[in-house]
Amino acid sequence: MSSARTRLIGLDPGLRHTGWGILDSEGNRLIWIADGSVTSDPKTSLAERLRQLHDGLQEVIAEWRPDIAAVEETFVNKNPVSTLKLGQARGVSLLVASLNDLPVTEYAPNAIKKAVVGTGHAAKEQIHMMVRTLLPGAKLSNEHAADALATAICHAHHRGSNRPLR
Amino acid sequence: MSSARTRLIGLDPGLRHTGWGILDSEGNRLIWIADGSVTSDPKTSLAERLRQLHDGLQEVIAEWRPDIAAVEETFVNKNPVSTLKLGQARGVSLLVASLNDLPVTEYAPNAIKKAVVGTGHAAKEQIHMMVRTLLPGAKLSNEHAADALATAICHAHHRGSNRPLR
Repeated sequence: MSSARTRLIGLDPGLRHTGWGILDSEGNRLIWIADGSVTSDPKTSLAERLRQLHDGLQEVIAEWRPDIAAVEETFVNKNPVSTLKLGQARGVSLLVASLNDLPVTEYAPNAIKKAVVGTGHAAKEQIHMMVRTLLPGAKLSNEHAADALATAICHAHHRGSNRPLR
Repeated sequence: MSSARTRLIGLDPGLRHTGWGILDSEGNRLIWIADGSVTSDPKTSLAERLRQLHDGLQEVIAEWRPDIAAVEETFVNKNPVSTLKLGQARGVSLLVASLNDLPVTEYAPNAIKKAVVGTGHAAKEQIHMMVRTLLPGAKLSNEHAADALATAICHAHHRGSNRPLR
C-alpha cells in the first residue's frame, strides 16, 4: 500500500488567471502530469468571469481526475478591493474541488516555499527553478501553473509517503 | 408588454448565512413570493461550506425559477480576513446565478437603502420596516432574507416598470 499512487491537483487562485498543476505521488516519487491556467475575460461581468473559472476548472478535473486538492492560502494584507476579488476567485477554486468530492487542504505561501525551497522566504524564480528540478519534464506553462505545482508538491510532502489515499 | 411579469432574486451573501428573497415585478407592482437564507456549518471545512451554500442556492433557484438576479455589493472596509471570507461566499452567489444563466446586477448598500427608504443612510430596522410595507405579506424569515429582499426591490426600481425581460 505504501506505493499507492495518488493524483494531486494544486491550485493557485486568481480572478484573471487561476493556475493548476497535476502530479502523481507514489512512495517518495513525484511525477509531473500536466499544468496550465484557466483565465477569465476582464471585459465580461464578474459573475460571468467566475463562471469561466468554474467551467475551466471543471474541465481540468474531468480530464485529469485528481484524488485530492491543495489550494494556496491567500495573502490578505493587500488592498481590500484586491482581497475581495481574490476571495471571489478563491471561492470558485475551493467550490469546484468540493463539488468533485476532492478533499481540499489549504497551505500558507510560507509553508509552500518551505516545502519546495527549504525556507519560508524565497524569490519566485527560486521556487520555479526548484519545481523544475523536483518535477523533471514539467511544462510549467506560466507562473500561475508553476505556483500551483509548488502547492501540489507541498501537499505531497505534508501527506508523507506512507499514507495511501482513502 | 409593460405588464410583463418578471421574477427577481435578491441575494445578500455571507459565509455563515446567505440571504435570498424572491419577488415578482409587474408594471409598478411588486409581489412578494418567498424569502429565506441558506447557511453553512462552521464546523466543516471552508470548501465544504462553500458547497453547502452552492447546493442551497441551486435548490432555491430550481424551486422559484427567477429570471434575473441582484446581489448586494460588499463592504470592503472591514478587516481583511472578513473581507476574504465574504469574497469567497460572494463568489458562490455570483457563480450560482451565472450557472443558471441569470443576468446579475450588483448594487452598493447605499443604492439599496436609497431605493427602499429614500436615503443612503438608514438603520437596518428602518429598511426592514420599509421592506414589509413595500411587500405586504412578506415572511421576512430573518435579517439576511430581509436584506436580500431589499436588494431585489432596488433592482426592480432600477429596471423601471417599462422594461420587459429579454
